[in-house]
Amino acid sequence: MIVILKQKIEQEKIIKLTEELEAQGVKVNPVIGTEISILGLVGDTSRIDPSKIEANTIVEKVMHVQEPFKKANRMFHPDDTIVDVNGAKIGGNKIAMIAGPCSVESEIQITEIAKDVKEIGANFLRGGAFKPRTSPYAFQGLKYDGLNLLKVAREKTGLPIVTEIMSPYDIEVFNENVDVIQVGARNMQNFDLLKELGKINKPILLKRGLSATLEELLMSAEYIMAGGNENVILCERGIRTFETYTRNTLDLSAIPALKKLSHLPVVVDPSHATGKYWMVAPLAKAAVAIGADGLIIEVHNDPAHALCDGPQSIKPSKYEKLFEELKVIANAVGREI
Amino acid sequence: MIVILKQKIEQEKIIKLTEELEAQGVKVNPVIGTEISILGLVGDTSRIDPSKIEANTIVEKVMHVQEPFKKANRMFHPDDTIVDVNGAKIGGNKIAMIAGPCSVESEIQITEIAKDVKEIGANFLRGGAFKPRTSPYAFQGLKYDGLNLLKVAREKTGLPIVTEIMSPYDIEVFNENVDVIQVGARNMQNFDLLKELGKINKPILLKRGLSATLEELLMSAEYIMAGGNENVILCERGIRTFETYTRNTLDLSAIPALKKLSHLPVVVDPSHATGKYWMVAPLAKAAVAIGADGLIIEVHNDPAHALCDGPQSIKPSKYEKLFEELKVIANAVGREI
Amino acid sequence: MIVILKQKIEQEKIIKLTEELEAQGVKVNPVIGTEISILGLVGDTSRIDPSKIEANTIVEKVMHVQEPFKKANRMFHPDDTIVDVNGAKIGGNKIAMIAGPCSVESEIQITEIAKDVKEIGANFLRGGAFKPRTSPYAFQGLKYDGLNLLKVAREKTGLPIVTEIMSPYDIEVFNENVDVIQVGARNMQNFDLLKELGKINKPILLKRGLSATLEELLMSAEYIMAGGNENVILCERGIRTFETYTRNTLDLSAIPALKKLSHLPVVVDPSHATGKYWMVAPLAKAAVAIGADGLIIEVHNDPAHALCDGPQSIKPSKYEKLFEELKVIANAVGREI
Amino acid sequence: MIVILKQKIEQEKIIKLTEELEAQGVKVNPVIGTEISILGLVGDTSRIDPSKIEANTIVEKVMHVQEPFKKANRMFHPDDTIVDVNGAKIGGNKIAMIAGPCSVESEIQITEIAKDVKEIGANFLRGGAFKPRTSPYAFQGLKYDGLNLLKVAREKTGLPIVTEIMSPYDIEVFNENVDVIQVGARNMQNFDLLKELGKINKPILLKRGLSATLEELLMSAEYIMAGGNENVILCERGIRTFETYTRNTLDLSAIPALKKLSHLPVVVDPSHATGKYWMVAPLAKAAVAIGADGLIIEVHNDPAHALCDGPQSIKPSKYEKLFEELKVIANAVGREI
Repeated sequence: MIVILKQKIEQEKIIKLTEELEAQGVKVNPVIGTEISILGLVGDTSRIDPSKIEANTIVEKVMHVQEPFKKANRMFHPDDTIVDVNGAKIGGNKIAMIAGPCSVESEIQITEIAKDVKEIGANFLRGGAFKPRTSPYAFQGLKYDGLNLLKVAREKTGLPIVTEIMSPYDIEVFNENVDVIQVGARNMQNFDLLKELGKINKPILLKRGLSATLEELLMSAEYIMAGGNENVILCERGIRTFETYTRNTLDLSAIPALKKLSHLPVVVDPSHATGKYWMVAPLAKAAVAIGADGLIIEVHNDPAHALCDGPQSIKPSKYEKLFEELKVIANAVGREI
Repeated sequence: MIVILKQKIEQEKIIKLTEELEAQGVKVNPVIGTEISILGLVGDTSRIDPSKIEANTIVEKVMHVQEPFKKANRMFHPDDTIVDVNGAKIGGNKIAMIAGPCSVESEIQITEIAKDVKEIGANFLRGGAFKPRTSPYAFQGLKYDGLNLLKVAREKTGLPIVTEIMSPYDIEVFNENVDVIQVGARNMQNFDLLKELGKINKPILLKRGLSATLEELLMSAEYIMAGGNENVILCERGIRTFETYTRNTLDLSAIPALKKLSHLPVVVDPSHATGKYWMVAPLAKAAVAIGADGLIIEVHNDPAHALCDGPQSIKPSKYEKLFEELKVIANAVGREI
Repeated sequence: MIVILKQKIEQEKIIKLTEELEAQGVKVNPVIGTEISILGLVGDTSRIDPSKIEANTIVEKVMHVQEPFKKANRMFHPDDTIVDVNGAKIGGNKIAMIAGPCSVESEIQITEIAKDVKEIGANFLRGGAFKPRTSPYAFQGLKYDGLNLLKVAREKTGLPIVTEIMSPYDIEVFNENVDVIQVGARNMQNFDLLKELGKINKPILLKRGLSATLEELLMSAEYIMAGGNENVILCERGIRTFETYTRNTLDLSAIPALKKLSHLPVVVDPSHATGKYWMVAPLAKAAVAIGADGLIIEVHNDPAHALCDGPQSIKPSKYEKLFEELKVIANAVGREI
Repeated sequence: MIVILKQKIEQEKIIKLTEELEAQGVKVNPVIGTEISILGLVGDTSRIDPSKIEANTIVEKVMHVQEPFKKANRMFHPDDTIVDVNGAKIGGNKIAMIAGPCSVESEIQITEIAKDVKEIGANFLRGGAFKPRTSPYAFQGLKYDGLNLLKVAREKTGLPIVTEIMSPYDIEVFNENVDVIQVGARNMQNFDLLKELGKINKPILLKRGLSATLEELLMSAEYIMAGGNENVILCERGIRTFETYTRNTLDLSAIPALKKLSHLPVVVDPSHATGKYWMVAPLAKAAVAIGADGLIIEVHNDPAHALCDGPQSIKPSKYEKLFEELKVIANAVGREI
C-alpha cells in the first residue's frame, strides 16, 4: 500500500502518521521528494482500511498495490480450482456445458428440454424457479414448484441442476435440493446473502454485477470463501456500458484477467449478455476460444412462447449445431467439451 | 407499445400476431410501410411482456412508449407525495436535512454528533449499524448494538433515525425501532427485500443503484408500492461511469427528471457520490439549486479516525457553515430549510 | 420513424403537424389511443431530422425504427464488401493479418520487424508515423520521415502499409504513399477529415471511437462513403467503460452486430483494447472465433525499449506462435489465414 | 512516479532498471517488501513515459502520483486565470453569460436573437456556422456565410462571438473574425487542431469530450498552452454514461474538481448535456450554485423550426426569466451575473 502525502507537510506530522501505521503491524518506508512524498507500506496490509488513512489531513491519496482478496487470489493458490458437483466438474480441461430455459414453466417443458440438452451433450441443467424481474408485474417464477420440477428433470436425465437463489430464507431448501446455487448479477453485492452462502458447502455460481469491477467480483467471492465455502464459480455475463445495441456488453477480456488474478473457474453466459438469440453462437465460440471453463446457454423449445427471455433463447436444434461447432474450437485451444 | 416487424412478412403471419396480441386485451393498429411495418398497441399494456413479443420470429423489436411504472408515475398521481415521518416531513416546500456519521461507533460518538447536527438545524439523524462493505475483512458495523445506540441518540435529541437494512431477517426489528429504513444502492434490485418492505408501512429511503437507470429505480420503488407501502423516498447518490477522479458521478439531472416522471420526493447524497469531503459543500448547494427535497450528509466529529468513509465526512463546524449557505440558496429557489 | 405525441393534444394541432410532415414527402399514419397517440411515418425518412420534430411542443419524443445509414447498410447491399488493397484483400474468407510496431522508430527497426512478420505470414505492415498522444510532451512520431521508412520496409517486403492520418493537410501525401489510411479512434468524428477522405479512392481503416455507438461508427463510415469512397474497413478497438483493469473493454459482440447491420469488413485491434501484451493472444483467438475479417496486432522486436505502447506489444517469436494457433481456430470456423 | 515490481525479482535486474531510470534524470528510492517491491521516483518525471517502464519484464505496473499537466496545473499557477475577450472577461467574480442559437440560419434570425439576449443581459453571442453532425445528410451549417452573419450580429449588438472550428484550414479566418474559438467535444483530442490553436493568441473554449476524463481534458488544454496560447476556457457539457433518459450526463462535480486541479476558468453547457429544453433552467441554476464561471445556453426564437437542436433550445422569454433567477443564486454564492 502506498500513501501519497500532500505537499509541504511538516516532518513531525509524517512521523505521527508513520507511528500510527506501524502500530497496525506494517513497516513504513518513506520516500521524500521535493514535490511529492510517499510512504510505502510493507507487510500484511489486508486488514488496513485505506479510507481511514485517506481521511488524515496530511494524506493526498492511498493506492493499493496488492489485491485485497486472499482466498480467491492466485498468488496464494497457484493451481486452478476444480469445483466438484456430485462428480461432474467445473474447471479443468473439460468445458462445462450448462443449458436450459430461462425459467421453469411446466413439468413437460423442463423435462423435454432437459432430455434434449442431455442428449446433445450438456452436463448441467439450468432453469429459473425464482426470477429477479425489473417489474413487479412480470412473471416471478414458479418458486418452490419450480424447484420440484427441476428435481423431476434431474431424476429423468441425471443432470445436476443450477438455479438462482434470491433470499437467505431459501438457503436451507436450496442446499438440500439443488446442485449449484446461482447468485444473480443484481445480488452480487447482497453481502448478507453471500455470508450465509459461505456457511454451507454447496457450489456457488457467482455472476458479475452489471457495474462490478473484476476486483469487486473477486471480493464478493472472497465473502463466500472467507465464510468457509471455497466452491465458487465466477460468471461473466455482460456489463452495463453506453452501447445499447446489445443489452449488455460481454467483457470477454475478463476471462484471461480473472484467470490470472484468481484460481477459481470462470464460466460465460452469452445469452444474458446480449439479449439476442442470433448472437449466442458467435459469443459462445469466442468464449471457448478465449479460455472460458464453461458456458451457460438458454435453450427453449418454443422461444416465442417462453414466459421470459424468449428473445435470447435458442432452440435445441440450434444448440445441437452450436455444440458440434464448439467442440472443434475447444480442440483448437487444447480443451475438450 | 410499438411492435416493429421484420421486412417482407406475409400478411397471414401479421394477422396471427395481431390476434394473439388482441387476446391479451389491447387494440392493435397496423401501420404498413414499404420497408418498415409496425403495430401500434393501444390500451393497458402494463401486463404485456415486451420480451415475449420480441421472441416472435416476425418481430424486429418492441419499443415501449409509456412508462412501465404505475403507482410511482406522476401521470396517475399529479400531486407531490409528502412522506410523513412521525410528524417530520420529506417532500414539500421544506428541504429535509439528514445528517450523521457513516457508521455508529459508540454511544458518545453518535450522541455527540446527533446533538451537534440537531443544534445546527438538521431534522433527521443518519448512521449505519449494518454496513455493506466491499471487503469481508472491513468493519461491518455494530449491528443490533448500533441500532440501540441510534435509539439513545434519538431519545436525547428527538431526531428521527434513518439507517440501512441489509437482510429481510431484520425487517421486524427495523420496523419497530427505526423511523426511515434505507435500502442501499447495492440492494436496489434485491427484489425479495423490496417485496418484504412493501408489506410494512414504514417510510423507505431507496437509493439508486450504481448502474441503475431512472426507470429501473422507479420500478424498484414500484415493487415496494405495489406491495402496499407508498411511503417511498428516492435518493440519487452517484452512478458509475468511466471517470475515476470522483468515486461516482453525481447525476444531478436525475432530480428534475425523477420529479417529472414521479410524484415521490427525491433526496441527494453528496457524500457517497464523490468520496471527497471538499466536494460535499459545492454538490450540496447544486442539489438544492436544482430542486432536491432533501440532503443526506455525512458528518463526523473526527473524520481521520472514523471507522468508515472518513475521507467523505465533514466536521460539525463545516456542516454548520454549509447549513447557513444552503439556507440562502434554498430561499433563492423559493424553498426553505 | 415514429412520433409519440404528448397527452390530450387537440385534433387540429395533430392535423397541422401531419401536414408539415407530409410536406416533407412521407406518409403519416396516426394511431390514436386513450393515453398515448403516435404518428407512424412511412417512406424515405432519411432526410427528416428527428430533433426538428421533437422540438414541436405537442411531441413527446421521436423514435427512429430504421437505421439512418444508407450506403453502409446491408439492407441495401446484401453482399459482403471486399476491399482490394493493390491485390491484397480485406473481407472475404481469408483473414487479413496486419502487424507491426506502434510507431516507426528507425530504418533498421521497421525493416527488421516487417521482414519478421512477413516471414511469419502477415499480409499488411502497420506502423505509426504520426502519433496521437494524450500528452504534448510525449513522442509524437517521426512524421514524414516515418512515412519514408515505411516505404523502405514495403519495398523490402512487398507488404502494403497501413498508417494513421491526423490532419487533412496530409491527405495528398498519404494518398500517394500509403496503401491503407487509418483514422484513429480520437478522430472518428472529425467530420472534416472524413469528408476529405471521401474524395479520394484509397482504402480507409476507420477505428471506433472510445465512446462511439455502433450506429455512430457506421454514420462516420457513411460520411466517407457519401463522398464517393466506398473502400471502408471498420475496426473495433475497445470502448471506454467503468472497468479499469484493462485500458478499454474490447466489445467483441460488435463484430456480429456490425456484420449484420453492414456489408463492410470488420477488423479487430486486440493490442490497443487492453494495453497488456499477455492479453493479445487470447483476445485475438476470440476475435477470429467470432468472425472478425482481420487482426491488427502490435509486434515489436524490443518492447521494453519501444518508443510507445511497449506494454501491449508482443515479440515476433510470440507472434509466430499465435499465428499458428490462429490458423487452427480460423479453420474451426471455416475461414483461413 | 511509482514503479511496482513483479514478485521475486533478482537484485541485479532491479539495479539495472534503477540505473536506466536514473539516467533519465530522476532519483530512485527502492522500497523492498517481502511480497511487493516498489521503486519511488523523485524529481521531474514529466518527460518519463510510464508505458516505456511498464514494458519492462520485471515491472508489474506504474502509477503516477503527480498530474502530468504543467501549464494548466494550479500547483504551478495558484491564481485563477481570467481570460480577456476584447475587454469582456471569462473567469473572476462575474459569471459569463453566453447565449444564442445552435446554428446561424439567417441574418434576421441571428440578429434578432442577438438583440434579445443582449437586452436580457448576456455578454457573449454563440452560434454555429460549421456544424459537426453525426449524419452526413443533416444540415452542416452556413459555414463562411454563417461567420459573416455572426459579424453582422456583433456589429449590431457589440456582443463578442463564440463559434466552433472544425478544421485547421479555417484557423486564419477564425482568428481574424471570431472572438472566442470553440473546440467541440468530438475534436477535444484532435491533437493537430489543438497544436495549431496553440500558435495563435485567440481565446479557446475547449469542450470536454464525451468520454474524456478530467485529466485528458486538462492534457488537451496543455496541448494548446504548450504551444504558447494560455487563453483557454474549459467547458463541461455532459459525458456519455449508461443512462439514456438524458442525452448525456452533466458531470457537475467536474467543476469543483477542475477548479482544484487547474487555474483555468470553467463554463457549463446545460443545453447539450441533456438535449431537453425543460432541463436547461434547473441545470443552469445548479451550475451557478456549484461555482461555474460561465454558462453557454442555446436560445432560439422558434425552437420548433430551428435547423438543429430545437429540442434543447429555450425561447428568449424563458431565458429572461432564467436570467433573473440565476442572478439571485449567483448572489447567494457570492458571485454576480
